[in-house]
Parts: sequence; structure tokens; C-alpha cells
Amino acid sequence: MRVGAVRAGMSVEVTCYDCGDSYALADRKRCECGEPLWIAGDVTAFDPDDGAYGVGRYGDLLPVDPVGVGTGTGGTPLVRTEGLDDVVGCRLHVKDEGENPTGSFKDRGSAVGVAYAHERGANRVGTVSHGNMAMSMSAHAASVGMGCVVLVPARIPPGRLGLIAQYDPDLVQAEGDYGRLYYEALEAGPALGVEFVNSDTPLRVAGQKTVAFEIFEAFGGVPDGVVLPVSSGGHASAVWKGFRELERAGVADRVPPLYFVQAAACDPIAQAYRNGDDEVTPVEPGETIAFSIANGSPPSGNRALAAARRTGGAVLSVPDDEIREATDRMARQAGLCVEPACATPVAGLRHLSADGAVDDEAEVVAIATGTGFKELGGEADVDAATVAVSDLERELGSAL
Amino acid sequence: MRVGAVRAGMSVEVTCYDCGDSYALADRKRCECGEPLWIAGDVTAFDPDDGAYGVGRYGDLLPVDPVGVGTGTGGTPLVRTEGLDDVVGCRLHVKDEGENPTGSFKDRGSAVGVAYAHERGANRVGTVSHGNMAMSMSAHAASVGMGCVVLVPARIPPGRLGLIAQYDPDLVQAEGDYGRLYYEALEAGPALGVEFVNSDTPLRVAGQKTVAFEIFEAFGGVPDGVVLPVSSGGHASAVWKGFRELERAGVADRVPPLYFVQAAACDPIAQAYRNGDDEVTPVEPGETIAFSIANGSPPSGNRALAAARRTGGAVLSVPDDEIREATDRMARQAGLCVEPACATPVAGLRHLSADGAVDDEAEVVAIATGTGFKELGGEADVDAATVAVSDLERELGSAL
Repeated sequence: MRVGAVRAGMSVEVTCYDCGDSYALADRKRCECGEPLWIAGDVTAFDPDDGAYGVGRYGDLLPVDPVGVGTGTGGTPLVRTEGLDDVVGCRLHVKDEGENPTGSFKDRGSAVGVAYAHERGANRVGTVSHGNMAMSMSAHAASVGMGCVVLVPARIPPGRLGLIAQYDPDLVQAEGDYGRLYYEALEAGPALGVEFVNSDTPLRVAGQKTVAFEIFEAFGGVPDGVVLPVSSGGHASAVWKGFRELERAGVADRVPPLYFVQAAACDPIAQAYRNGDDEVTPVEPGETIAFSIANGSPPSGNRALAAARRTGGAVLSVPDDEIREATDRMARQAGLCVEPACATPVAGLRHLSADGAVDDEAEVVAIATGTGFKELGGEADVDAATVAVSDLERELGSAL
Repeated sequence: MRVGAVRAGMSVEVTCYDCGDSYALADRKRCECGEPLWIAGDVTAFDPDDGAYGVGRYGDLLPVDPVGVGTGTGGTPLVRTEGLDDVVGCRLHVKDEGENPTGSFKDRGSAVGVAYAHERGANRVGTVSHGNMAMSMSAHAASVGMGCVVLVPARIPPGRLGLIAQYDPDLVQAEGDYGRLYYEALEAGPALGVEFVNSDTPLRVAGQKTVAFEIFEAFGGVPDGVVLPVSSGGHASAVWKGFRELERAGVADRVPPLYFVQAAACDPIAQAYRNGDDEVTPVEPGETIAFSIANGSPPSGNRALAAARRTGGAVLSVPDDEIREATDRMARQAGLCVEPACATPVAGLRHLSADGAVDDEAEVVAIATGTGFKELGGEADVDAATVAVSDLERELGSAL
């Protein structure tokens, strides 16, 4: 069984999580009700392919098999991080998504998005991003000889641009409202012959849902909660969809409570959750060290809100000082180098356990969405002792 | 079967690859003949544990099971990189070791070295490194609450120090001959209560040999050649040992030719190979972008030389301009961001195929030993077009 197969030239059907309307993937970017779409399909079995790596293990539940560097995507470890239990107030497991080809969870969505465009003979894919997604799409396209258009804001740090440019995409700086670009690009793509795989498009969600499958397999069941950062809401939607499919396939007895965490400086989804609203109201993003998740106008914000509420989870936000502390603790107490955005689950869990939403016996999975190595090489303020090699034992003994 | 088990308090036996002498691990740092040692053991079966991740899959062939972030180590993908076939003149597969917790192959050795020290109740591990191994040891120790002493040269770039310091090890700058420090540290360790797991120590080789097991499993047999960078010779020794064990276990019919590549600015092992010498003569390291492998006095140099010769392989060196080009091509034609040291196999393979050592039908594995993300964030010189969001389709159409 291949759900929504494109192999035989079948059209891929997409549905709305909210109103249930269905369309052909090529026909609609969003549901007529305004909400985002994801790929439909009757999931009746869960039968991973042991002969394939990572995302490819779940080919039966994907519209296409990964190609190029997509075949090396996913397959990340779930690490039991006892050293952080006291910090978060529960039994913590970290899903280390930094162990992907371009160092973030974005590779899962790119693996499916690029393979789909490749199979249909497209020459070029594209995305709207100035961070992990831009690097990921550029790398996956490069690995199969396809072009990639990356739309970045007019002013981004040169270091960031260099990380993306190494894969040689067509880099285009956009002047104007960067938030609108998400929609403009999806509209303009077909005429330009560019398959845009933006943050929460159906193909990206399809790839990213595989993280739920891996958590389920590694944990040996459904954990007591799953916590992840939320930005566009695409990843949150994907984790929700993945666990829903496991439930529908009859292998999981429930969907775990999903907890989503934002930076306080840009927390439109958390605000809606706190206010009891059904819809997310856009905000002007403030400055935060968790810049990767500072999306003030999240296209899948309402869907993420629904995922948190319908699974018995929550959406919360944490200030930068707590994010910074959580980042440090993940390195010093778990040996994990993550970017600040990925430490928000650890920071958020402290509040969830303090509030009683999570107890100290709960087995909780935090998704560390990306490596911290990308932007670390330059900064340092480090104390180190100095000893002489010629008398190491004595000098080292004194220094320690 | 557990080879060289420490569980039951058994002592771990180590042997010399060259003269065959055996010792207890705790008693000797090197063989009396001067050569390095590795863990002995009769390998009679190869029976990976499907329930464990990465390095832990091969617990039967390791002295100890990984702990902490070691449980998330290994399990990296082997990616078929067709886009590079024309560059290297053969059918290339890349083993992406950047997909490890600290972004390099060093995590495999740390997983075993730290677990061993942890199981024996040591308080502190240590290493002599200012790069990947330092980060790796610090992270693995942190993940199980152990201390870690890292001996770095007196003058290293602050960015590099910051990458290591995030895990909060005891950082010590050593004044004097850094090459001697490898030996001094191993000697001083026991008195100081520090288990040094340096570049080619038996425990590190034990962990690193698992990359051969993973290549064998993913490839579905023994490839026509395996190519990797060589520095201390520890990794080269480990790959050799891994394939030897597969052969002894009766699952592999041969050990593949092993090709080792150095930077021309520091190539003592390649010089010995070219000269037909049995022993490596130390050199003064020159400047190279492949600084990770610029070891002028490799402690396992003779063993690496033996591995290349006895498997029908070779040792060669490549200049910086070829390393730089190979690094770029790996990103642009395979979607892989690697540090320059890890691009040396691709640069070296061009020579091997030009010389007829490798033909265009050969299925060859290159080990990309570490991610390039660690030191990229700062530099950039990038051209990008600019368009207006408000008229995206027209402007983007013109820009592309």
C-alpha cells in the first residue's frame, strides 16, 4: 500500500483537517475555508521497510520514495537524557533531529518535497526561508541535480547567507513584507515552473510526520507527551498527523498530548491558546535568540492550536533567558549542542511540570529540531588553565 | 558473546597488530615493540542487535554498551551520490559521519571510551585535541555526569575553544611540544585519575570500527574500496579492524582495499607509502585548510601504512586547492556540507581513478568524517538577486 501514490501518475488528494474538504494537490494551495491542507489517504497498516534508511522506511505512507541526500535523511536517535530529568521534572527523552544531512528536521520535508518534484520531472524547487529550510532545500535539490530558488529577506547576516550559498541555489533577496512572501511564492510557483515546498505545504508535512513514526518505534509505544518548538505550525501539524496515522493504522492506542513552545518575543499561537481563541492573530515579531521560530504570522497556526487542544496538550512561550539557560543545560547535562530555538521544549517543560501538567514519572519526548553547530564557530569567551607539556603530570595535577 | 567483556570484571586483553604480543589493557599504553595496541578477541559471529541504535547494535563485539549520548551515536546513512560519479571516476557512496551527536566520527570512539570509564566508576575522562575529538569527549562525558579534561594547544582560535567549551569540560592549554602531549597524557592519566581516550587508543578504535560494520550492512556486502582521510591513523586502523572482524566472523569474504588520504602540506604516511618505507617519519606540519588531519607525528601511522598495503590499498595526498574544490563539489553535487578534511577522499579518488587503481564500475565508499557546519557561520561572499514581494511573479521570473 502506498498512500497517495504518484508513481502511476495518480493525482495526490489533499484534505483540510478542519472542514474536511478534499482537493487534488495540484489544484489548491489552501482549503477554501482558508486553512492549510495535508495529504489524505486511508491508513490501514504500519509496516516499516527494514531495508530502507530513515524517512524511506515509511515509504508505504509517503507519496514518493526519497532520492539523493533524502535517502540519508531521518533515522535520528531518541536519547534518554537522565541528566535533564531534574531540570524538566519528568523522565526526558530527546529526539536529536540535528543528526540529519543539513542538521535539522527540515530535511524530512525536503526529502519528500524534492523527490516529488524530481519524479514529476520538474527542473526547479523553491522555498521561502533564511535558515534551516533554505539550507535543506538547497542541499536536497543539489543532490539530484535540480535547481533551487531560495527567497530570503533583503537584510540577513552574511554568515547565514554563506551557509545556504554553499549548495549553490538561486538566492533571491525579497524587498517588502516577508510574511506575505509565503503566499506570493506559492501562487507564483506554477507559472515560473518552480515547485515551492514551504514550511507547512502538504508534501513537507508528509515528510515531517515520519518523526512521529520513529519516536513510536524507538520508544516502543506512545510516550506520555511530545514537546516541540512551534513556528509556522507545519512541524506541529506533521507530528499530529503522524500519530493520528499510527492510531488509524491500529498500532497506537492514542495520540499523545502535544505541547508546543514559542519564544515569548514572538508567540502568536501561545497567545491564542491562553486567550481561548480558535484563531491565531498575527503579531509583529520581537527580537529573540530563537530566531528560527520567530514567525509572527504562522500559516498553520490554527492547525497547531487545534493539535494542542484536541490532544490534551498546550501551547506556551518562554523568555530568552530561560531559552539560553536551557540551551546551556542541554550541552552541559546531556551532551547535545542545539540551536536556541530547539531548547524551548526543555524550557517549556519546566513550566508544564511546575503547573502539574506533567508529573515526574511521565516519559516525555522533546524534539531537538536542529544542531547548534551552524552559528557557533565565531563566538567565545572561555577560561582555560595553562600547563607545560614538559611537566604535564605535576602541572595538570595542580590545574585540575 | 561479548568480546573483551568488562561487565563481569574481566580484564580486557589488547594485542599488537604487528608482533602479536598481548597485554591487559590497564597495563600497557603501547606494545613493547613500540606499535599501538587494539582490543583482542575471537570474533566468531556477527549478530547485530536490531533493538539498539547505532554503535549499540554491535554490543556483542564491543567491550561495553554505550551510555548517555553514546546511545545516539552511529547509525549514520550511506548515501549513493551519483552526482559525484563523474568527478571521482567510479560509483560513489558517501558514509555521512557528520550525522552524529557532535557532528563527527569521533563520537563512535567516545561512545565506547566514556562508557568503559563510566562502568569502571571513573570520575573523569580526558583527551588531547583541539577539534572534533575534544567536542566529542566533552559531550559524551557531560551526558553521563562525568568530568572531562581537554588538553588544547596554547594558541587556538577562540571560536574553536567556544565549540568545545559549551559542554563545560576542564579546558587546559598546553605550552610546549603538542605532539608529545599525546604520550605524556597517556602516561600521566592513571596517577591523575583521568582515563585518556586519545586518537588511536584501543577503546577508541573499538568504537570506531563500527563504521565498517554499518558500511557492510548498508552496502549489503564488501564494497570495491573504502576511502577515508588519515591523521593519527586511529580511524584507519579501526576501519581495517572492523572489516577483519567481519572476515573472521565468516560473513565477509574479504577485506576491501583501504585508501587513505592526507593533505599535501602534512603527509608523513603518504610519504612513507610512496618511498616504500615500513615506518613513518614525522614531519613538521605545514598550513592546510584540512587542519583536522594535520598530524605530523601520527601515533598509528605505521599501522595505517600496514592497513593500506595489506589490503591492496594505498596512501596518497592532495593539495589544498583540490581539497577546496572537492569540498565545494560535495555541497553542490551531493548536498553534503563537510569540513575540508572530509573532502580529501573525493579529491584523492580522482587520482586513484586517473591512475587506474579504481575503475568506473567500481562501487566505492568514501567516509565523510565530519560536518562542515561547525566553522561556517562567519564567512560569506555571496551574490544574490533582489526582487520586490509586491510583484513577485514578474520580478522573480526576470531574476531567474
